Amino acid sequence: MTVFPEAEFENRLARAQAAMGKAGFDALLLTSEADVRYFTGYLTRFWESPSRPWFLVIPASGKPVAVIPAIGGALMAKTWIDDIRTWPAPTPGDDGVTLLAECLREIGTERIAMPMGYETQLRMPLQDFHRVQDLIAPMRIDADGGLVALLRAIKSQAEVALIETACGIAGRAFDRVGEIAGRGTPLSDVFRNFQRLCLEEGADWVPYLAGGAGSLGYDDVISPATPRPLQSGDVLMLDTGLVHQGYFCDYDRNFVVGRPDPAVAAGYQRLREATQAGQEAARPGATAAEVYQAMQNICQAGPGRLGHGLGMQLTEGLSLIAEDHTVLEPGMVITLEPGVDIPGGGILVHEDDFVIEENGARQLSPTAPSNLPELPA
Amino acid sequence: MTVFPEAEFENRLARAQAAMGKAGFDALLLTSEADVRYFTGYLTRFWESPSRPWFLVIPASGKPVAVIPAIGGALMAKTWIDDIRTWPAPTPGDDGVTLLAECLREIGTERIAMPMGYETQLRMPLQDFHRVQDLIAPMRIDADGGLVALLRAIKSQAEVALIETACGIAGRAFDRVGEIAGRGTPLSDVFRNFQRLCLEEGADWVPYLAGGAGSLGYDDVISPATPRPLQSGDVLMLDTGLVHQGYFCDYDRNFVVGRPDPAVAAGYQRLREATQAGQEAARPGATAAEVYQAMQNICQAGPGRLGHGLGMQLTEGLSLIAEDHTVLEPGMVITLEPGVDIPGGGILVHEDDFVIEENGARQLSPTAPSNLPELPA
Repeated sequence: MTVFPEAEFENRLARAQAAMGKAGFDALLLTSEADVRYFTGYLTRFWESPSRPWFLVIPASGKPVAVIPAIGGALMAKTWIDDIRTWPAPTPGDDGVTLLAECLREIGTERIAMPMGYETQLRMPLQDFHRVQDLIAPMRIDADGGLVALLRAIKSQAEVALIETACGIAGRAFDRVGEIAGRGTPLSDVFRNFQRLCLEEGADWVPYLAGGAGSLGYDDVISPATPRPLQSGDVLMLDTGLVHQGYFCDYDRNFVVGRPDPAVAAGYQRLREATQAGQEAARPGATAAEVYQAMQNICQAGPGRLGHGLGMQLTEGLSLIAEDHTVLEPGMVITLEPGVDIPGGGILVHEDDFVIEENGARQLSPTAPSNLPELPA
Repeated sequence: MTVFPEAEFENRLARAQAAMGKAGFDALLLTSEADVRYFTGYLTRFWESPSRPWFLVIPASGKPVAVIPAIGGALMAKTWIDDIRTWPAPTPGDDGVTLLAECLREIGTERIAMPMGYETQLRMPLQDFHRVQDLIAPMRIDADGGLVALLRAIKSQAEVALIETACGIAGRAFDRVGEIAGRGTPLSDVFRNFQRLCLEEGADWVPYLAGGAGSLGYDDVISPATPRPLQSGDVLMLDTGLVHQGYFCDYDRNFVVGRPDPAVAAGYQRLREATQAGQEAARPGATAAEVYQAMQNICQAGPGRLGHGLGMQLTEGLSLIAEDHTVLEPGMVITLEPGVDIPGGGILVHEDDFVIEENGARQLSPTAPSNLPELPA
C-alpha cells in the first residue's frame, strides 16, 4: 500500500542496522515526518497539524516499531510495519510519553540514538522528551551523528525515479508560464496560477513556491508574492518544490517580459555556464566544497550556498559551500543553484536538479532554455 | 509591509510582556514559524526548508530582536523589527549558536522562557540548543507554561477577518466540487483538482487536503488519495486547510455520488445536530470539555477529539475532548468536528469553523447544506 515494494524498506532497514552496528547503537528513535516515512512508507499530509507527536523505533534487529496516535493506526497498518502501538492522542499529561518509554525499555537498549544535529528538529515537546529520558534512565538518548541523514542521502533508483518524475511535472508547468504571466499580470496571480499549472500537470501538492520579478533581477528569493503587476523588461523567476508521491523537485526557471536588459541576458548566460561547471565537477569522489568552487569561479555570487541535497524534503543533506567537505557518492541527488549580482540591480538565480552516478552528474530537471524565454509584453 | 498595521504587533508585544511580567520571565525565545511570525509578521514559505534555524527574542521591554539566517534579512527588514542580526547560514559548526547566545547575554536575562509543552516543537537541532544553554549558563531556558500559545489563542478582529476570508475561499471551492467530481472520477484527480479550485478562488496556497470516499462512509480522515474511481452511492469528504495571508481555514464538506444510503443520510443529519449543539455550548465561560460533551451526547463517536483551535496553524490550542478544561474566551477560533460511525461501514465526519464572541459562537465557514449535495452519478 505504499509506492515502493517491501524490498525497498527491507534494504533501508538493513543499511540502517548495519550502520547502527558499526556505531554501537542498539536503537534509533525517530520523530520527524521524513525519517518516519523513510522506514515505513507512511505518507500523509496530516503532519501539517502540530498537535500530535509520532514515534518510530528502529531496533538493532527486527522490524521498526511504530508508537503513534490512534488516528494514524489504520493508515500505518497498510504499510509493512507489523508492530503498531497507539494512544488516543491528544492525551493531556501523557501524550505518548509512557507508551514510548515502555517500548524503549522493552527493546532493552543501552544506547539509543536520535537525529539531533544539523538540519534536524525535535518534533515533540521538549518537556516530553525530558520525561521520556527520565522514564528510561539509566538508558540514554544520544546524538546519531548524522547516521540517518547519511542513509537518506544515498537514494535508491526508485527514489531517483520519483524525483525525476517530479522534475518533469514542474517542467511541463514551466513550459506553460506564457499562459498565465505577461505584462500587467500581478505577481500574486502568477504565483497562484503557477501552482494551478503544477497540479494540472500532475503534482500531488505544491508545498513550496517562491520567486521574484524586477527589471534588473530581484531582491531576494524567499519573499511571498506582492500584487505588483509585471512590467515590460521584468525578469520573472519561479522556484518550486512540488511533490510527487512524497518526493520533491526543487528548481527554478527565469523568464523575461518582452526583451531582457543586456545585463540580465548576460547574467543568465553566466548562470548557465556556472551550472555546467558545477555539473562537470559533481562526480563521485568530489566534495561539496569543490562543486561550490567550480561554480563560484564563474559566478562570484555573494555569501550563501550554491545548492544542496534534495529528496523527501525540499532541502536535505549537504550544502554547496566552501566549508562542506561531504564527498559525493552515486545515488546522491543535489541541486546546483548559482546566483549572480546584476550591476545596479538585484540578483539572478538559476537552479537545476541532478543525480550523482558512477560517470558523473545526470540532470533530472529538463534542459533549461539557452536564452531567457520571453513572456507577452 | 505586512498584512497588519504596526499597532497589531504593538498590541501582541504588550500582551506578551504583561504576561511575561506576571510569570516572572525576562525574555522569551521563539524558534517556530508561527511564533516568529506572530510577533514580526515575517511571512515566507521558506520554512519548508529544514536547513536553517530562525530565532526571535522577546525582551521584558522593548521590541523583539531577530537572530536569523542572512538569506532572510531583506524580508525581515520589511517588517516592524529594527534589530536584525544575521549569520551566513548554513555555517557548519556554529549555525547561529554563538550569535543567539550573545544576544541573550546582552539582554542580560535571568529567566528565559521557551514554548516546550503541548503541541510545541524545537525547531532547531537539539545539540545546538544544548550548546546555547551551555554558553549562557548560569542563565537557563525554562518552559513558558503555555504563555505564547494562550496569547495566540485569543485572536484580534483583524486575525478573525483573515480566517473568515480563508473560509469563504474554501466555501467557493466546495460550491464547485460538482465540476470536478462524479461517478468514475479517480479520487486522486478529485484531490488534485480541488486544490486547483481553491487556488482559483483565491487561496495563497493549500497546505492541507485530506478526505475519503466510500458507500457507507470512509475508513479514516488522514489518508492520501488513491486512484480508486468514485462509485454511484459513494459519500465523498474533502477537508481542507488552505491559507489566506498566513491564516488557515480548516473545515470539510461531504457530498454523495447520486443518492446516499439512508444510513449515510441519517448520519449526516446527526452530524448537523451535533454541530448545532456544539455551537450552542461554545459560549464564553464554557470549557472545551463541555462543548465536547454537548456534541458527544448526540453523535457518540469513538475516541478522538471533536474539534480544536485554529489560526496561524491548521490546528492549535485547545482540543474538544473530555479532559481539556480550557475556558472559552471571546476571540478564540475553534473548529467543531463531530463524527459518527455508519453501521456496517466506516465513519462520517463534519467540520465547521467558529469564533467565540461575547454572545456566543459565530460561524466563520459558510452555512453547510441541509442535505448532502449530490454529484453526477
